[in-house]
Amino acid sequence: MAESMKGLRRSHRCTEVSNRNIGETVTVMGWVQKSRNKGGIIFVDLRDRSGILQIIFEESDVGSEGFAKAEHLRSEYVIAVRGRVEARSGAVNKNLLTGDIEIRANDIRILSEAETPPFPIEEDSKTKEELRLKYRYLDLRRPDLQRNLILRSRVANITRSFLTEEGFLEIETPTLTKSTPEGARDYLVPSRVHPGQFYALPQSPQLFKQLLMCAGYDRYFQIVKCYRDEDLRADRQPEFTQIDMELSFVDVDDVIEVNERLLKKMFKEAIGIDVELPIQRMTYKEAMDRFGSDKPDIRFGMELKDVSHIVKGCGFGVFTGAIENGGSVRGINAQGQATMPRKKIDAMVNFVKDYGAKGLAYLAINEDGSYKSSFAKFMTEDELASLVKAMEAKPGDLLFFAADKDDIVYAALGNLRLELAKNMDLINKDEYKFLWVTEFPLLEYSEEEQRYVAKHHPFTMPMEEDLHLLDTDPGKVRAKAYDIVLNGHEIGGGSVRIYQSDIQEKMFEVLGFTKEEAYERFGFLLNAFKFGVPPHAGLAYGLDRLIMLMAKEDNIRDVIAFPKVKDASCLMTEAPSIVDNKQLIELGIDVKNNTDI
Amino acid sequence: MAESMKGLRRSHRCTEVSNRNIGETVTVMGWVQKSRNKGGIIFVDLRDRSGILQIIFEESDVGSEGFAKAEHLRSEYVIAVRGRVEARSGAVNKNLLTGDIEIRANDIRILSEAETPPFPIEEDSKTKEELRLKYRYLDLRRPDLQRNLILRSRVANITRSFLTEEGFLEIETPTLTKSTPEGARDYLVPSRVHPGQFYALPQSPQLFKQLLMCAGYDRYFQIVKCYRDEDLRADRQPEFTQIDMELSFVDVDDVIEVNERLLKKMFKEAIGIDVELPIQRMTYKEAMDRFGSDKPDIRFGMELKDVSHIVKGCGFGVFTGAIENGGSVRGINAQGQATMPRKKIDAMVNFVKDYGAKGLAYLAINEDGSYKSSFAKFMTEDELASLVKAMEAKPGDLLFFAADKDDIVYAALGNLRLELAKNMDLINKDEYKFLWVTEFPLLEYSEEEQRYVAKHHPFTMPMEEDLHLLDTDPGKVRAKAYDIVLNGHEIGGGSVRIYQSDIQEKMFEVLGFTKEEAYERFGFLLNAFKFGVPPHAGLAYGLDRLIMLMAKEDNIRDVIAFPKVKDASCLMTEAPSIVDNKQLIELGIDVKNNTDI
Repeated sequence: MAESMKGLRRSHRCTEVSNRNIGETVTVMGWVQKSRNKGGIIFVDLRDRSGILQIIFEESDVGSEGFAKAEHLRSEYVIAVRGRVEARSGAVNKNLLTGDIEIRANDIRILSEAETPPFPIEEDSKTKEELRLKYRYLDLRRPDLQRNLILRSRVANITRSFLTEEGFLEIETPTLTKSTPEGARDYLVPSRVHPGQFYALPQSPQLFKQLLMCAGYDRYFQIVKCYRDEDLRADRQPEFTQIDMELSFVDVDDVIEVNERLLKKMFKEAIGIDVELPIQRMTYKEAMDRFGSDKPDIRFGMELKDVSHIVKGCGFGVFTGAIENGGSVRGINAQGQATMPRKKIDAMVNFVKDYGAKGLAYLAINEDGSYKSSFAKFMTEDELASLVKAMEAKPGDLLFFAADKDDIVYAALGNLRLELAKNMDLINKDEYKFLWVTEFPLLEYSEEEQRYVAKHHPFTMPMEEDLHLLDTDPGKVRAKAYDIVLNGHEIGGGSVRIYQSDIQEKMFEVLGFTKEEAYERFGFLLNAFKFGVPPHAGLAYGLDRLIMLMAKEDNIRDVIAFPKVKDASCLMTEAPSIVDNKQLIELGIDVKNNTDI
Repeated sequence: MAESMKGLRRSHRCTEVSNRNIGETVTVMGWVQKSRNKGGIIFVDLRDRSGILQIIFEESDVGSEGFAKAEHLRSEYVIAVRGRVEARSGAVNKNLLTGDIEIRANDIRILSEAETPPFPIEEDSKTKEELRLKYRYLDLRRPDLQRNLILRSRVANITRSFLTEEGFLEIETPTLTKSTPEGARDYLVPSRVHPGQFYALPQSPQLFKQLLMCAGYDRYFQIVKCYRDEDLRADRQPEFTQIDMELSFVDVDDVIEVNERLLKKMFKEAIGIDVELPIQRMTYKEAMDRFGSDKPDIRFGMELKDVSHIVKGCGFGVFTGAIENGGSVRGINAQGQATMPRKKIDAMVNFVKDYGAKGLAYLAINEDGSYKSSFAKFMTEDELASLVKAMEAKPGDLLFFAADKDDIVYAALGNLRLELAKNMDLINKDEYKFLWVTEFPLLEYSEEEQRYVAKHHPFTMPMEEDLHLLDTDPGKVRAKAYDIVLNGHEIGGGSVRIYQSDIQEKMFEVLGFTKEEAYERFGFLLNAFKFGVPPHAGLAYGLDRLIMLMAKEDNIRDVIAFPKVKDASCLMTEAPSIVDNKQLIELGIDVKNNTDI
């Protein structure tokens, strides 16, 4: 049975009906959340995007045919109901927006019947994700997912309104573009017209947005899909969405200023959170020194302390050896954790091994002032006392130390800090703490490629005061690059771009490209810059991750309508899939036998 | 020379400075449109996105170093200028927003020098398109292209604001999806993780938006890239943009109603055009009968007339033969064209041959009432008089007739009508005439495939009153499908969808699919519909074409920032291109030798 809605027109969504409509006749349509027959009266919870509304069916109102239909209803049937709004006869349900009213039906049509869904449509589903993703169209009926996608739509809309008012133009850049063998792996699209040639799906509109600045568009933005063929982590997808922007005739402060106002508006209007401006700024160096991370979670303290100067002459070879090898010894203070069981301490020691550390030294200060430590025996009482003082520790505290090359110390303690905070329940999940991290290194040395590679991308502007170091000590050059960090997640990042050909040439030289190689890869941009280019800078947010944080979800798939799983497949459509051989012939490509690979 | 803008901050865009700022000091930045030295004073037209502002440099204001820089300026140099706003000393230039003022510079920096561009940056460029597309970043500096892209950004923004206010959610659907071998050719994306398998880029989000309705999202929209690997025509691109929407619990009138308000708002706010509501509606049948087209340009008349009943017994075998073969004889009246030279008439006869017609019969009514005709000799005076009367012709008019199967007659006369209107200058280019064309045929018979194929797509709902014809005469079934036509261009189209499994099964049967084939192609949608699906309908606009019409451009590439040419390549980036063999190995595909194909 699938009746037509001919002659009927929905008058309200479910929760658009309120006690102000009492006495009126309304027409509502939606899904049966549940239905029950209680003493010859049928109660139906009707669900739509807006929420739930109670309908009551009595044969005296709806007639015998209508009542028979109501008796026939099961979960997820789609119905249209016309009826009178009444104050609720039973107890008011304070959990519902419409908890004080009900609709007394005088007409019902069954628009669509439904088989029993493979899992219940309910908040906080316990059903395993694979099944839910296979039936994504049912999973998407759950109110929590609906809230997430509604939030996502609102954030996109707020962003667009704001940027438009600020003079940004939304300009679409191509998706079928050129493969540039720098950065992550491209998704390729074979060309039928030019057999043997390929388009690449863009990893970002970087070059195009810089060309738009060169073309005088002044302020560009786009909410745009980007693509990276990388192995997926929990918060990665093969296709992801960026809020991408670029501005002309600006420097770092201008980009930060407009984005702070964007974030303030976005968080206020979408989730009612006040972002205090200006947002705190911290250099990369300070972030690493204090938090061991370039995206520190500053909702809690437990900062790193460099104790190299305290322990440099001590008797503990692990400490002194690290310092002698050019590294450092740093610690964090897990306050009040002195009684942490040995087993848990060992787990922490193991935890940091994932980040390249050989181990952790620890020192617990018992309530009586005595120590429990992995290394105390190698130190004098005085040395230990100075160390405890440097760590601002008191009885009851537990200190962890890492001694190694700086980057390993940072990684170990930075991650340990987060792990401890979770265990110690230090994080206020209702808090949103923003931070700009600035002055990133321009380059990092790739051991694999035996050359410097751009940390951001090759068009990132060095800081003026470090330009002279490009020749002598490129690793020390800081960039006009900035990340916006929220609660320990990088939600966006960008940079001021090079617009001077001499600096750009020097940059390519440092990266080890010949002029020919540079032109082969980025020729159209370099050519464009010969014809008058304004100073420009930009920033891009990862929208998926941003929404994930706003929605307080842990899984990026919960904020994407039709996400892919770890092997980059879609469990609902079963993409990717085998295609007709005819299609491959037209494209002039062959699939290699699996065993060839 | 590429100076830094350190310490400078732009205070205004060029045309944001006005005579209200006279006496103030401003800082402006932009490109040198032109510069000239007139008696020791240098005049520079500075250009940015907003327009042009005149700067004057005198050594006494700007100093000798500054003046030397000003002397050095050439077209397309990027400069920053600080100076005082003054009333223009020379003649006021009424063509410029800033024509009554100028800036007396007291500081100048050359931010970027420029080589001489390969073509001048000017409105209505005469430079051939290939060169302009190669240097698209320069072409995009031209004010007409900038206006187009600014218009495009505004239209997108107006659309989004309107739809959001109307309760639509913008929901992103995937780009890496499954190939469905129905419709146009897909662009494929090889999967690295699943060698031998492919994603397809979507031709439209059709299935996903229907799933979103099934999932209860109620009103969806998206401004979204779609992809078709077809040979390009003047107004086609491999990637194109749709304003895509879908609504639940609606019928034809609801979709039309909300879209009429969208169009009204869009045209008013973006280009100041008042769209009168309701927009005229016409069935497909009426459109074909009156205009020979399913997207008639109704800015002018010259309608087709069926004269079959007049000529069915006449002595002209071409006419009577066509009628006997089940076709018709129809004519159009080119008023006042009786004196059209024979050569031009012959050109019209040739013109219709492109549309399958064997020729055209013509009858000119001379001012003295005599005829000049290709067929008058086969008819009696009375027959000719009735024909002239049926065509509402008077002396000075020229009549054209086509006699053939209906579809050929429609195509020939429909296109002849447009061609004549162009020649006769009947079209008011400032007029925007909208039209809904409704009740399209559900199916069309494919001679190639020897079966019925869906005219819109297989999920289009038949009209209730024609349902019974699905079994007996499927070609006669009309669909709940509608197109929105503007000035003879289809700018959008859509339909009410089938939500009843019995009708859907019947539809697949008529299309010649077995149940298995239907599931193989559209299984996830058919499965979804088992769990409760609301009546739903939708519509999609071609944004590129819409903007083209709003901007009064003839070429779709003029409203796309980085378009592709006829062979689907980008002349600027040279995409598609050859990729590293390493990339192909990772994807498990081989490129066939060209000679194999």
